[in-house]
Amino acid sequence: MLRVSYDGTDFCGWQVQNEMRTVEGELNKAINELTGEDIEVIGASRTDSGVHAKGNVAVFDAESTIPAEKFMYAINSLLPDDVTVVESKEVDIDFHPRHCRSVKTYEYRIYTSRINNPLKRRFAFRFPTELDVEKMDEAAKYLIGEHDFKSFCCVRTQAETTIREIISADVYRDDEDIVIRVTGAGFLYNMVRIIAGSLMEVGSGKYEPVHIKEVLEGTDRTLAGPTAEPQGLMLVNIEFL
Amino acid sequence: MLRVSYDGTDFCGWQVQNEMRTVEGELNKAINELTGEDIEVIGASRTDSGVHAKGNVAVFDAESTIPAEKFMYAINSLLPDDVTVVESKEVDIDFHPRHCRSVKTYEYRIYTSRINNPLKRRFAFRFPTELDVEKMDEAAKYLIGEHDFKSFCCVRTQAETTIREIISADVYRDDEDIVIRVTGAGFLYNMVRIIAGSLMEVGSGKYEPVHIKEVLEGTDRTLAGPTAEPQGLMLVNIEFL
Repeated sequence: MLRVSYDGTDFCGWQVQNEMRTVEGELNKAINELTGEDIEVIGASRTDSGVHAKGNVAVFDAESTIPAEKFMYAINSLLPDDVTVVESKEVDIDFHPRHCRSVKTYEYRIYTSRINNPLKRRFAFRFPTELDVEKMDEAAKYLIGEHDFKSFCCVRTQAETTIREIISADVYRDDEDIVIRVTGAGFLYNMVRIIAGSLMEVGSGKYEPVHIKEVLEGTDRTLAGPTAEPQGLMLVNIEFL
Repeated sequence: MLRVSYDGTDFCGWQVQNEMRTVEGELNKAINELTGEDIEVIGASRTDSGVHAKGNVAVFDAESTIPAEKFMYAINSLLPDDVTVVESKEVDIDFHPRHCRSVKTYEYRIYTSRINNPLKRRFAFRFPTELDVEKMDEAAKYLIGEHDFKSFCCVRTQAETTIREIISADVYRDDEDIVIRVTGAGFLYNMVRIIAGSLMEVGSGKYEPVHIKEVLEGTDRTLAGPTAEPQGLMLVNIEFL
């Protein structure tokens, strides 16, 4: 198992696509070069183009005799500097990172400014006016628990069910930035970005916090806010239960 | 006068060079497009390739009737997103940002890790082992005051004198990072990066803090540490007196 950190700015997301530069593609290439085996990793979260990770997870089977704990140093020497393996270890042969129960934490980072900030632009979304962080946090609390998150899911979803469980949801200031931090047992496609877009509608004064409860109960994507841009989103951690 | 912020990673420094992508070159191009005049800005600090700025300063003369305070919005719409004008205002016709007396503040940011961090790599230097921040701060204090900084200056310097005044020098932790913050009335070429390289030699235990005093008194570049890599350096602010 590899824990993988990346700056998603210059990747077309995690998943291998023809001719595109992807995180999975870079990992496969480096592992194949290292082991001489034709290996394809399985990722825990197939993050979108532009989305970052402190700790995404990938697994693969290999014949390689390199000790699992040392594998990270060998593979890092072959990876470009916007993706790095931060931990490598052996796991059970039947471990599948998308079929095992897990808890994921995401952060969506926002800065409020009339103008672009070249020093923040890769890892935060710029909102042009002030946001009411307390109202956003109050609104986020309605998301906690097991709910049908259909309103917060891309309409193109192939998920069998849109019921998910959010364990915690907080909005707070971090220096000059605003951070939306959400922990849950599984997320739908685009769910955190739609949550972020909806909470910004509350923060800007377009709606009161209780609006988020109404959106949730309406189970209709058109009630929620826009899908917030990818550069603000970071997959912070995945814990397997 | 323009205050300019930039992510220096993808620039070959400030100063215009043939065919190279530079901050000054992007500013000239945008101003010329906006005003139709053939203008070349004068920069306060000609930062090196890879060095960043929160607030570098550029001035120019123009016939343009755009109010100075609005100029920033017009020019930002023509600039790439790794450089942004954060303030624009009118100044005296005889104001020259390199001939006026000024106080500059620089920060050099370090993270200590055996492995690369894709989320920090653009704005911080990776040191492979732990550093003793208290000893580095103690060493930095020897730099305060008016001294001959010949030891901390690139040997290729064309400066008439290597005497400069450091007003404050501090080394402290900022979350997981270590920051060297230096404020002074003028700096020699590569001075902050050589200070950073020398303080890291103290932090790693190669020398005691008093070594910095000996380097200073020796007035010999070979006594100081290496020139630290550019990506850790940020020009934070320039104040004109």
